[in-house]
Amino acid sequence: MEPSVDIQYILNTFSFLMSAVLVMWMAAGFTMLEAGMVRTKSVNTILLKNIGLFSIAGIMYWAFGYNLMYSGVDGGWIGTLMPWSPSDTAPTEGGGYASASDWFFQMVFVATACSIVSGTVAERIKIWPFMFFSVVLTGVIYPIVGAWTWGGGWLSELGFSDFAGSTIVHSVGGWAALVGAILLGARAGRYTNGKTNPMPGSMMPLATLGVFILWMGWFGFNGGSVLALGTVADATTMATVYVNTTLAAAAGVVACMIASGIIYKKIDLTFVLNGALAGLVAITAGPDTPSPELAIMIGAVGGILAMVAVTVLDKLKIDDVVGAVPVHLVAGIWGTLAVPLSNADASFLSQLIGVLAVGAFVITTSFIVWYALKKTVGIRAAGHVEESGLDMHELGSVAYPEFINNRTDYDNPVAIDAHTPVVAAE
Amino acid sequence: MEPSVDIQYILNTFSFLMSAVLVMWMAAGFTMLEAGMVRTKSVNTILLKNIGLFSIAGIMYWAFGYNLMYSGVDGGWIGTLMPWSPSDTAPTEGGGYASASDWFFQMVFVATACSIVSGTVAERIKIWPFMFFSVVLTGVIYPIVGAWTWGGGWLSELGFSDFAGSTIVHSVGGWAALVGAILLGARAGRYTNGKTNPMPGSMMPLATLGVFILWMGWFGFNGGSVLALGTVADATTMATVYVNTTLAAAAGVVACMIASGIIYKKIDLTFVLNGALAGLVAITAGPDTPSPELAIMIGAVGGILAMVAVTVLDKLKIDDVVGAVPVHLVAGIWGTLAVPLSNADASFLSQLIGVLAVGAFVITTSFIVWYALKKTVGIRAAGHVEESGLDMHELGSVAYPEFINNRTDYDNPVAIDAHTPVVAAE
Amino acid sequence: MEPSVDIQYILNTFSFLMSAVLVMWMAAGFTMLEAGMVRTKSVNTILLKNIGLFSIAGIMYWAFGYNLMYSGVDGGWIGTLMPWSPSDTAPTEGGGYASASDWFFQMVFVATACSIVSGTVAERIKIWPFMFFSVVLTGVIYPIVGAWTWGGGWLSELGFSDFAGSTIVHSVGGWAALVGAILLGARAGRYTNGKTNPMPGSMMPLATLGVFILWMGWFGFNGGSVLALGTVADATTMATVYVNTTLAAAAGVVACMIASGIIYKKIDLTFVLNGALAGLVAITAGPDTPSPELAIMIGAVGGILAMVAVTVLDKLKIDDVVGAVPVHLVAGIWGTLAVPLSNADASFLSQLIGVLAVGAFVITTSFIVWYALKKTVGIRAAGHVEESGLDMHELGSVAYPEFINNRTDYDNPVAIDAHTPVVAAE
Repeated sequence: MEPSVDIQYILNTFSFLMSAVLVMWMAAGFTMLEAGMVRTKSVNTILLKNIGLFSIAGIMYWAFGYNLMYSGVDGGWIGTLMPWSPSDTAPTEGGGYASASDWFFQMVFVATACSIVSGTVAERIKIWPFMFFSVVLTGVIYPIVGAWTWGGGWLSELGFSDFAGSTIVHSVGGWAALVGAILLGARAGRYTNGKTNPMPGSMMPLATLGVFILWMGWFGFNGGSVLALGTVADATTMATVYVNTTLAAAAGVVACMIASGIIYKKIDLTFVLNGALAGLVAITAGPDTPSPELAIMIGAVGGILAMVAVTVLDKLKIDDVVGAVPVHLVAGIWGTLAVPLSNADASFLSQLIGVLAVGAFVITTSFIVWYALKKTVGIRAAGHVEESGLDMHELGSVAYPEFINNRTDYDNPVAIDAHTPVVAAE
Repeated sequence: MEPSVDIQYILNTFSFLMSAVLVMWMAAGFTMLEAGMVRTKSVNTILLKNIGLFSIAGIMYWAFGYNLMYSGVDGGWIGTLMPWSPSDTAPTEGGGYASASDWFFQMVFVATACSIVSGTVAERIKIWPFMFFSVVLTGVIYPIVGAWTWGGGWLSELGFSDFAGSTIVHSVGGWAALVGAILLGARAGRYTNGKTNPMPGSMMPLATLGVFILWMGWFGFNGGSVLALGTVADATTMATVYVNTTLAAAAGVVACMIASGIIYKKIDLTFVLNGALAGLVAITAGPDTPSPELAIMIGAVGGILAMVAVTVLDKLKIDDVVGAVPVHLVAGIWGTLAVPLSNADASFLSQLIGVLAVGAFVITTSFIVWYALKKTVGIRAAGHVEESGLDMHELGSVAYPEFINNRTDYDNPVAIDAHTPVVAAE
Repeated sequence: MEPSVDIQYILNTFSFLMSAVLVMWMAAGFTMLEAGMVRTKSVNTILLKNIGLFSIAGIMYWAFGYNLMYSGVDGGWIGTLMPWSPSDTAPTEGGGYASASDWFFQMVFVATACSIVSGTVAERIKIWPFMFFSVVLTGVIYPIVGAWTWGGGWLSELGFSDFAGSTIVHSVGGWAALVGAILLGARAGRYTNGKTNPMPGSMMPLATLGVFILWMGWFGFNGGSVLALGTVADATTMATVYVNTTLAAAAGVVACMIASGIIYKKIDLTFVLNGALAGLVAITAGPDTPSPELAIMIGAVGGILAMVAVTVLDKLKIDDVVGAVPVHLVAGIWGTLAVPLSNADASFLSQLIGVLAVGAFVITTSFIVWYALKKTVGIRAAGHVEESGLDMHELGSVAYPEFINNRTDYDNPVAIDAHTPVVAAE
């Protein structure tokens, strides 16, 4: 006997809330990952960008995003322009939930998409243009893609299937990041004389912590995307999703350990960390239907593809500081196309159309925004700013002020003390 | 049809437990925030103080606090002096829960109040006097304030409304911290010749991680304060609380980004981080009734007030290392007074009386304790101890022993190796 | 009236999933604890080992472990050799749950056991032999111990009681770590002229964060081990478990603060951190039956025993980098033997037999594996590798590349830049 409509409503709501907290936590994961992967002179900026974009995403998704995505799409292209407000009535049938729990769950997803961009363009993008891009991405671009799919728009009617957002979240972020990275150009000194110069992450425990946080948060991301916990079938699906999610991540790790050990003779920690994330991204489009074996395969292939994509990007001189494009875009496409392997409701063709349509839309719109910013306020920090670090110039503070050697390549080390301490302003 | 009393009991209990885990996690948030904001020579001490105070809070709230706060207050001033023990019977009506789940949820709140103090008085307070103050705060001062309010005492009968503790938790901690900071005096060299000398945080990614942890934990703090999940109305309220909590934090961030960008020409990361926390503190008194718009306003004003308060404290030469008084006391008062804006059950007068009564009580009692400690064992570390760092002198260890430059201002660098390693003691 | 079988199934499943996420999170806790406790030259290796072992545990427990432990043990010694696959039918009686939720919950436990080993053998073990040991531990050794006990094998029939695994998880990891540490030998320079030379942890905030993560995760570890949330009795037991878990940890902290303050005149942060963990390990064998007072006693004694054991190990010149043997093995034995103090179903004799049998089995099997590895591929890094750090030699990267002083004791500092950046490979 199914639980009563009241009990279903409570369980569905609580599932949304617990899952959303885990996804919100992914914002900390991206922050730690990116803070660990950039150089010390760019750390405060990446910290600010991440907490800033999460906050912007919250405000924009309330003011514009949610209703653009979900209100009256009806097989079309876009919803309604109107701030979100809660609207609850007593549940009269199964599957109900508090409207605010759904809003919160969807909001943390848009923040995830925006977090992906932040790492790729790190160390040379000006702060305010990045914040403005975040406004448009979270208030307009992402919600329109969402309207086509989860909002019940045309792609959804075509049969496109993306359970928790390999395409809708991860490749949206990935495309926007890729376009930004191309328009920005590589960091100074990254590619010289046909060589890629190493710019290793400055604090690897933070990067690793970030990956563990993301892995943890992904259970909310994929598990919460069952969108219900009110029936035995919901609970069973959620459990399957958890298992496939963790197996895909584990397979990404193991695949990249072995592959980097063989190819480079030394296991590369960065590749292994990205292997976990690529496995997670790859399984996200369809974590509910694969067997454990298939989930392992999907994750392992995702990890390897991301590893290959890093090398390809470097050959193309596209500088992606944290490897977000390989992880979120490349593995996201792979995961989306792999859905039909276990889900008979999805066809390869509809999946491919979805990938291409979303790609074309996000490339176009994000190009327009990035390009307009470039030609007006500019997106790239000045050379001397980049050289001595955005932290000191744009924020007037540094992340590790007492670890003195960090300062040696700054143009004017004495100025740090003078600028640092807004807290200390008289 | 409402869920059965058994199901309500299970759901209420599970909600308490999950929420309490999130609030317990806030202890790690305070620890990381404070460890990142102090200078390297004071990091181990702040780590110890935080895990120590959380543990003391647990023991004291079992031995004294819980029953002082909740047992037989009946409109009065104080409960019963008796250790807590679980007492469960089969539920016979709705709204029941396991007594241990309630104890755990309440315990992590008292630990939060105590964590607030720790950051303000950092870098110059002796360890054992701080631990003793924690004993009194968590075993006596906080529980008495709690008895007046959540325990059903006189303030509660007066109509004072503080949903999750802007006043009861945050300003209790804030007042105790403020009194401590005044009696302690500022760190050596903080204010000289009418100027505030910058003492920037030593590891900003940890501080930022701390803020994300606190933000995450706040969903348990405010959401769990619905105190039930057994009915549709409970679940709907909880979802509303989650949304308003995150919107207020986001608004605090955005407001401080814009304000610090305008006032100081550079966005200040510390202000932005504190803006998130001030938004969270401000919404805590009434996260259940505001519309999204009002939650955004409450959070934004909270952030700006905290920013202003930092400057005011510096003018008064009150040295609050992490800005806990601006965040927890100032935004806490604002949030408490803002409750009547959306909650017709609360009057501005009863809110004001609550703020003043709690303030008067905590100022008086914490002054007595701090002053008695100052006049007996002393609360301030000796000058040379503060100069070379409490870590080395009080703990015999440093947080970053291999990052050599940290040691340059120590009075006897060679001594570090000799002292460090209790683990290595023969 | 008990909830329906459907509702019980949903609640039990959700409890497993939420608890398992918390236990999965403990992997990050171990990682941060160990990364903070090793020296800077060994950090990347410990990061890799931890994410690697967690992933290996996931794959192995799917391929071998789960069914070896749970399928058809029937009072015997071992289950079935067969990969796990989900098998769900509609629930027809109470206590049901999704099979995948149970698998996930059990899987994160085996990862915990393996994480324990990683810290003890840090800074001198080769990576691949460690990974191979992880394969055997998670695929064979742990599952067989699990079959004897939780799988319904002979020890279980004997009345051995270990609620959440003081012995089954923690001392299994502890014994395997101890044998490994003995066969490996101490780090170069650790014990010279009858003295223990300090090798203090390189980043204590990470170690402290790790302990908070573990404390948080332990609520899932112990609380989830109720294995159900479908009845009032289940919920009440779970709440009791949460309270006793946190009180034992708090008592471990307070006991080690006081004891180290008295014995060493200075409070030792490392002992206090390990005190929290030892309290947690000690209560794990029986968190459901003690009163709060008894939980406090069990935790305090656990903390003190771990502190003593650190000194004993050093006297024996057994080098346990993070104190995992004192915490997980010693406190684990204590906790297991303390179960009869409050649980009338457990006898001291059956507990002792369990401790000894598990110890004998794990010592024997892990000795065989470690010894075979030692005699074939070797387990100990070469002297110059250990001296300059495994990170640079085995991984070709370092954790803090810009914090230059870290490099001073490397044999060839210039080589770091040349090796670091696999990401930058052409």
